[in-house]
Amino acid sequence: MSRFWSPFVKDLVPYVPGEQPKLDNLIKLNTNENPYGPSPAVLEAIRGELDASLRLYPAPNADLLKETIAEYYGVTTAQVFVGNGSDEVLAHIFHALFQHSKPVLMPDISYSFYPVYCGLYGIEAKALPLAEDFSIRPEDYRGENGGIIFPNPNAPTGMLLPLAGIEQILQANPDSVVVVDEAYIDFGGETAIALVDRYPNLLVTQTLSKSRSLAGLRVGLAVGHSDLIEALERIKNSFNSYPLDRLAIVGAVAAFADQTYFQQTCQAVVTSREALTKGLEELDFVVLPSAANFVLARHVERDGEELAAELRAQKVVVRHFRSPRIEQFLRITIGTPEQNQALLHALGKLLTA
Amino acid sequence: MSRFWSPFVKDLVPYVPGEQPKLDNLIKLNTNENPYGPSPAVLEAIRGELDASLRLYPAPNADLLKETIAEYYGVTTAQVFVGNGSDEVLAHIFHALFQHSKPVLMPDISYSFYPVYCGLYGIEAKALPLAEDFSIRPEDYRGENGGIIFPNPNAPTGMLLPLAGIEQILQANPDSVVVVDEAYIDFGGETAIALVDRYPNLLVTQTLSKSRSLAGLRVGLAVGHSDLIEALERIKNSFNSYPLDRLAIVGAVAAFADQTYFQQTCQAVVTSREALTKGLEELDFVVLPSAANFVLARHVERDGEELAAELRAQKVVVRHFRSPRIEQFLRITIGTPEQNQALLHALGKLLTA
Repeated sequence: MSRFWSPFVKDLVPYVPGEQPKLDNLIKLNTNENPYGPSPAVLEAIRGELDASLRLYPAPNADLLKETIAEYYGVTTAQVFVGNGSDEVLAHIFHALFQHSKPVLMPDISYSFYPVYCGLYGIEAKALPLAEDFSIRPEDYRGENGGIIFPNPNAPTGMLLPLAGIEQILQANPDSVVVVDEAYIDFGGETAIALVDRYPNLLVTQTLSKSRSLAGLRVGLAVGHSDLIEALERIKNSFNSYPLDRLAIVGAVAAFADQTYFQQTCQAVVTSREALTKGLEELDFVVLPSAANFVLARHVERDGEELAAELRAQKVVVRHFRSPRIEQFLRITIGTPEQNQALLHALGKLLTA
Repeated sequence: MSRFWSPFVKDLVPYVPGEQPKLDNLIKLNTNENPYGPSPAVLEAIRGELDASLRLYPAPNADLLKETIAEYYGVTTAQVFVGNGSDEVLAHIFHALFQHSKPVLMPDISYSFYPVYCGLYGIEAKALPLAEDFSIRPEDYRGENGGIIFPNPNAPTGMLLPLAGIEQILQANPDSVVVVDEAYIDFGGETAIALVDRYPNLLVTQTLSKSRSLAGLRVGLAVGHSDLIEALERIKNSFNSYPLDRLAIVGAVAAFADQTYFQQTCQAVVTSREALTKGLEELDFVVLPSAANFVLARHVERDGEELAAELRAQKVVVRHFRSPRIEQFLRITIGTPEQNQALLHALGKLLTA
């Protein structure tokens, strides 16, 4: 604490991202990265941009990327916003599109950055408990609020809310912006972008960090009514004119263009998820049904935090949250078949030791 | 305007960056980019990082880059903050380190993003007139304030305030954070970073967009007392965990490492600036003394806005500001000797037509 801080800085509770361990020989299943690298076409596109033109500012509106996304999803460019990772997009949403005088509704078990954004912008976060089976109950999302946000599939549960449930929330809240954070949608869900033309209060966010294997490039996006996008553009242009660098723009464009690679890698992750789930169940884990590139699982007998620590000693890193209701669970990113086997092997040894 | 906007969005007046024209055959002297590309070592370093590791998140604290900058300037890593361009760094400074209940002091002719940040965070911007000769008068920066910010060299004037003037401001304002925005310092000024250990209220910002030819990569930094840096880290970690992508981190590190290339290109720009100034004066321009990679110049007879439009018709793009006191000026980025000759040639034709 310093006398030079603006008054609210001391009360901030920053987000803590999953560890980025520096040891090379770890099996890293803790931050939901894709086990497969980006499309070769992405690397090629970036290589093609890697020249003296880096001296020039990027296109401030990343027009080429917006056009690519608009075409991909069958919307107009005025319905597309892009940012430096979906985290930046989400920050601007909390700033621009939630009413700061009313509570913002979110699940109690959810992306832990949401309450941090509330802290940053002085918004009350109202956590609504998931059902006993960890599903989102659409009927809970009503009453006066300044906005609604949830991931779909939810994180860290991995569980999917069908579009009918999303429509129920949208219809019950015509005066609030409802944000569906689809970071993991490509691993088994149906995007709500199909609904944006019918619901002016719907905003869908996505990231290229997961299904497009580009966590290292920092690109996120939002799709919704052009009025919502305009508010985000106004904030963005009052914050940073060029949030996406030249390499990120061409890389992201190439990622959307290579549909074949995208589908192959997504399918490989889904296949691995099913195999890993089966393997964990055979080791007496309860695994929540996941539509994401991770599973949330607890052992019927063993303590979650202890298991995470013992796995770490075996050079396998998974994520454990010291949060109510899920402190007995491990969140395990889907790796390659070899990584998943190594995890199951390590767990098998620990559990029979 | 939409009913979904948070209340203050409608009052925002976003920053308008210099145009990024899409025509290839323009001579682009409007956004103060470096006429020389980045060091070959930068391109090589990025190429080396361009592989499957892009699937992984970057180091959230960009440790390698912080260590590089700390070593370069002889400070500790706890005194270094990095962000997605100095614009993002500046935004966090306005949020975290200015007292929002008091006016923030800045020159009336200055980087036009400062009042935009004030609008974004609900801070009063108090513009203090430059002297008649367009210099900053340190003695004007006193009295109750929530912070002080100015570029040095100032933009768009290009004029340098010596370190003694900066110390005068720091000493008169021991309870305010004083931000010296050194976007252009490497083209002829002496950095105030040498003062940070003596003044806990001093924060110096820099960018890699100008002297390091990396506008397209988006990297900025701040150096100051660790208490000031900690406030920025808290905001950053409540906003976006990974503002710098993997490629930007290694590219920026390589840019600081190649000192020879850096000095050669800076010197070439300085030499060109002197030649361009002379050429403009021969065409009856009044040119402010510049320590930056641009000059602010007005013709003794011709209207600034008209001249800018006529140059544009000749495929030379410079920047004109419709702002009080400088509306007769053109802000001209220093190009290559060939570009500068082309500009002078075009101007010569226009002025004798």
